[in-house]
Order: sequence, then structure tokens, then C-alpha cells
Amino acid sequence: MSFSTLADFERALLDLPCPDSTALDAACARQSQLTKPAGSLGRLEEIAVFFAGWQGRERPLLEHARAVVFAGNHGVTAQGISAFPAEVTHQMVANFEAGGAAINALCAAAGLELDVLALELDRPTADFTLAPAMSEEECLAALSAGAEMIEPGLDLFVPGEMGIGNTTAAAALCASALGGSVAEWVGPGTGLDPAGIARKVRVIEAALAFHASAPSTPFEILRRLGGREIAAITGAILRARQLRVPVILDGFICCAAIAPIFVASPGIVDHCLAGHCSAEPGHHRLLERFGLAPLLNLDMRLGEGSGAAVAVQIIRSALAAHNQMATFAEAGVSGA
Amino acid sequence: MSFSTLADFERALLDLPCPDSTALDAACARQSQLTKPAGSLGRLEEIAVFFAGWQGRERPLLEHARAVVFAGNHGVTAQGISAFPAEVTHQMVANFEAGGAAINALCAAAGLELDVLALELDRPTADFTLAPAMSEEECLAALSAGAEMIEPGLDLFVPGEMGIGNTTAAAALCASALGGSVAEWVGPGTGLDPAGIARKVRVIEAALAFHASAPSTPFEILRRLGGREIAAITGAILRARQLRVPVILDGFICCAAIAPIFVASPGIVDHCLAGHCSAEPGHHRLLERFGLAPLLNLDMRLGEGSGAAVAVQIIRSALAAHNQMATFAEAGVSGA
Repeated sequence: MSFSTLADFERALLDLPCPDSTALDAACARQSQLTKPAGSLGRLEEIAVFFAGWQGRERPLLEHARAVVFAGNHGVTAQGISAFPAEVTHQMVANFEAGGAAINALCAAAGLELDVLALELDRPTADFTLAPAMSEEECLAALSAGAEMIEPGLDLFVPGEMGIGNTTAAAALCASALGGSVAEWVGPGTGLDPAGIARKVRVIEAALAFHASAPSTPFEILRRLGGREIAAITGAILRARQLRVPVILDGFICCAAIAPIFVASPGIVDHCLAGHCSAEPGHHRLLERFGLAPLLNLDMRLGEGSGAAVAVQIIRSALAAHNQMATFAEAGVSGA
Repeated sequence: MSFSTLADFERALLDLPCPDSTALDAACARQSQLTKPAGSLGRLEEIAVFFAGWQGRERPLLEHARAVVFAGNHGVTAQGISAFPAEVTHQMVANFEAGGAAINALCAAAGLELDVLALELDRPTADFTLAPAMSEEECLAALSAGAEMIEPGLDLFVPGEMGIGNTTAAAALCASALGGSVAEWVGPGTGLDPAGIARKVRVIEAALAFHASAPSTPFEILRRLGGREIAAITGAILRARQLRVPVILDGFICCAAIAPIFVASPGIVDHCLAGHCSAEPGHHRLLERFGLAPLLNLDMRLGEGSGAAVAVQIIRSALAAHNQMATFAEAGVSGA
């Protein structure tokens, strides 16, 4: 396992690599020579330079790009915090495997390979209002399962998730790691009404009270309030950093998966772009805390990695312009 | 010519077709059955339904999608209102034709056919501080040249433009058609400094004073203050409407091309989506007047159709999800 022990995980947080400064400089220099007014491609220019730095290439590629949907079930669904029944997690995994979900269509459109990793769906995490969601071993296994989806040379990684109840876990992680009132982190998820949202707030408040005396380390917050698919995303994003693989973050749950480690190691978001801002209200707040400006604002709130998969289309455009445009000298165009 | 006479043009403005309501209803019904919480794909759902209506198909296609860069030269460049010399228009047309510009790379990435139509570059429009930019015949010829780039069965159209000096023409069109102070519509264009912006404002104020006693019809505003590439865009967008071809609007100049007719026929924007909001400050104001929310906000300000070409990637994602996803019944997934 990539994270066999707690010490492996904690050591990784203290040793986050930086982008390649030579490739960064070369990509910036190239941008300044392309046939357009300086800066006129806006964020497309920033994206190209970001990818150059993390991939270590003046002209970054998107040939081997992967999305993974991690799926898990949550004992806290016993508290009635979702508009959908827990069996939908399993049904949607079958839908992903059959190619019928939004993420299948969006990955095909964006040229992303899609993998699905269902994490012990028949063994939900414990109801975290009554116990830690995961044992240490379970949390390390989930972190490692995520890490193992990332290999050297991957050009881009999109983490996705499916898990009925996981906006409740995400809100609990954010409230515990980042503070603020629980209500500020809670939203309708797949479609709760106001009474359902109020119940969700009470359930999370009860959970925070139950775990109040536990150590507030990233690992303890994650294992007590997270879920298997969430810890897998944490592990995947951390492993991507170790391998300098750029990450496009999706929505609230995916971002909440790094909230606990962000507090200890704020540089964890440096190899990440925010693909979009979800309509789930906690996501906007979370991106602000991370200091990330989303590429898209399309009122999406599906999860699965869907918003990030759409954002990959923007990355493709950015890299196409960066790699294929002529310079002023090549094209014989007068500068300003 | 599509608009051989002023009467042809004025008649077109009074007869704007509507989308196909049967296809709209069918697409809405389909969206409600796909395996996702209702509304969770946000604007992707709206886009799919919009395309269904204009294409008249429950499952809209993007097989035959075209961008056209219209290029023209502007006599008003004699007033020193651009950071680049006028010969750059010609040089950039050569760059488009050789495949080296941003729009070439962005169209290739988005699967858009790209055409370039240079409109009498060696015969700039008149300096509109001293005379109408175009004669009636010249304006009708430009409107028709644009219209002729659109044929029945086109799945989508992106208008682009290149013309040193054309943000000055665009700001003049907006100020004349929509009112407000000239300064509210003027920005740096390709890169003016504050002194250059102040000069641009004075030049446009002089032009508006010169034309103050002219009739304020859409056609007169367009021919007096526009340019050939701008009138070609007006003609293309109007012809697209006659043929129910959906349009993705690009930046400030492209949108300013329909400002004069918007005042007379506000429904002209109904078959248009705003691809992005440009960093050129007048564009945000103009989109608000049109009541269009841009799909992208990436701080782009290049023109050429570049922002709209990036937005076509979002359209592709939206249609992929709409057309390829399984329904709850097909996938055996429980509803909410």
C-alpha cells in the first residue's frame, strides 16, 4: 500500500514537490511570443503555464488523462440525510460501468479515460454520529486505494465520487477542519428540502460533538468524519502531487477531501486547478479558503467528477493555443 | 445578395422565426428522465434544450459547426486609436490562412470548421469622425457577404472578427444605439494605455457629434459607425436566425455588431448564447443589456471568435450528456 502506515501519510504531507521552474519559464517566454496581444488569452495562458510547470515540459500534453469515480457507502444515511436511498450508490456504479452516466458522456467528450473504483459498497462506514466512520486500517486502505490509481507520467487526473450521503460527510469535514458554523457548510446535496437541510445540520452538529475530544489531526478528522471514497480522493490527490501530476478538482465532496490536509499543508492545492464552482453552497466557500478561482460556473451540482470533466475541455483549448500557435517571428506579424 | 436592398434588411428584422416547440418539449422531457438529480447538470441542461429548439431535434448534433473570421480595415485608425498598426489586419489574415493564430488552434480543438473572409482590406472604411464609414451599397454588400457564410443545416455558427481599430467602431455603435456615456463603452482594446483610452473616447465623441443629425435606424447606425467585418457579422447572425442556426457570440465587437438591431428587435438575441465575457469592459455591459449570461469568464480579450470557440467545447459536453446518458428506466436506477 502507498500509505501503509500513518507515518507514511504524515511524511507525504511534509514533502510536497514544486513545479519545474525551467519549464515554467520556457512556457512563459513562449506565451509572450505568440501572435496575440500580451495576456489576451487570459486564463488560457495561465493554464498552459501551470501545466508546463507540473508536467515539466514547455509544451504540455494531454494524451494520457484519467478520471476516476470512487464510490463508497455511508452509515450516516441511517440518519435520513439524503434525498436518495443508499442503494443508489450501487445502482449508479452499475450505470458507470455500463457507460450510461453523465461522467461517461463527459469523459468521452473530453478525451478522458474513465475508471470506476467501488470501495466495499456492502460494508458502509460506521454512522459517524456514533463512532468514527473508519478504523485507522480502513482509512489507510482507502487512502492507498486512491493513490494506486495514479501512476508516473499521467498528464492529468480528475477525481470523481459517488456515495449517497457524502455531502453530509463533506460538510462535517469542512466544519471540523476549517471551522465556521455547520449551517454554512450544509446544502441540499442531491435535492433536500429545507426541513431536510435542517436535519442534516443537526446530524453534523451531533457528530462534531461526539468527536469533540478527538485529536484534530488531518488523519483523525478524515477517518472519523470522511468516507472511503473521500479518503481515496485524498490519497489520489496526494499521490498525484508526489508524482507532479496536475489535478482538476471537481465539486464540494472532492474538495472537502483535502480540507483536513489543507489546514496542515496549504500547499496541497498548488498542483490543483478548480474545474468549476458547484451550486452546492459550501463549495464556493471552500474554494475561497483554498484561494482557487474556478474555471467554470455552470450551476452544476452532480458530482461524479462531472464539472472537472467539462473543465478539461478548457484545458484542451488552452494547450492547443499554447502548443500550436505561431510566434510573431514565424508569422511575420508586427508587434505592438 | 441576401440583403440587396435596405428593404430586404428591414423586412428580415420584422420576421424572426421562433424555436421548434415540439423539439423543446421533447428535450425537456428527456432531461427529466436522465440518471441524475433533476437540474444537477445546471447550464448544460439549458444548453441542450436550447440547441434542441433551434435545431428542431430532440437530440441536437454538432457535426457541421462553423466559425468564420471576418476581417476589415478602419479609416478611423488615422486618429491613433489602436496599439497596433493597421497593416496587422492583413498580417493576421495571412496568419489565419496559414493556420498559426489562436482561432486556428481553438477551432481545431473544438471541432469547428474555420473560414476566413477578408473584406476589401486595401479599401478601409472612411474615417467615421469625418464621414459615414460605409455607403449604403457598401454596408449592404458587407451584410450580404456575412449572410452568405450561413447555409441551411448548419448545426452551429461562431462569428469572429479581426480589424485593427474595431473596438473603437464597436464602442461607437454601442454608445449610439444603446446610450450611456462614451467612456462607459471604451476600453483598452489590444492594449492602449490610459492616455490612449482617453484619446479613443474623444475620437468617438467627435464621431457621435458628426453623425448626430442622421436618422437613428439600425441600418444608419451600422453603416455610419460600423465596419465591413462588423456589418458582415450582423448579416451572418441575422441570416442564421432566418435559418434557425444557433449562434455562439464571442466578444465585444461581435456583440456590438447586433447592438443597433437589438434596439429595434430585441428578440435578435434569442438564437444566441454568449460564449464568454471578455475582459474588454464594454462587453459585460453589453451582455447585461442583451440579458445573456456568458458561459465562460476566462479574462480573454483577443477577439477572432476565440472565446466562443472555447465555449463550443462546453456545448459539446452539454450535448454529449444529453444525447448519451441513460434514463432511470434504462439503467435501473431508483429516482428520488
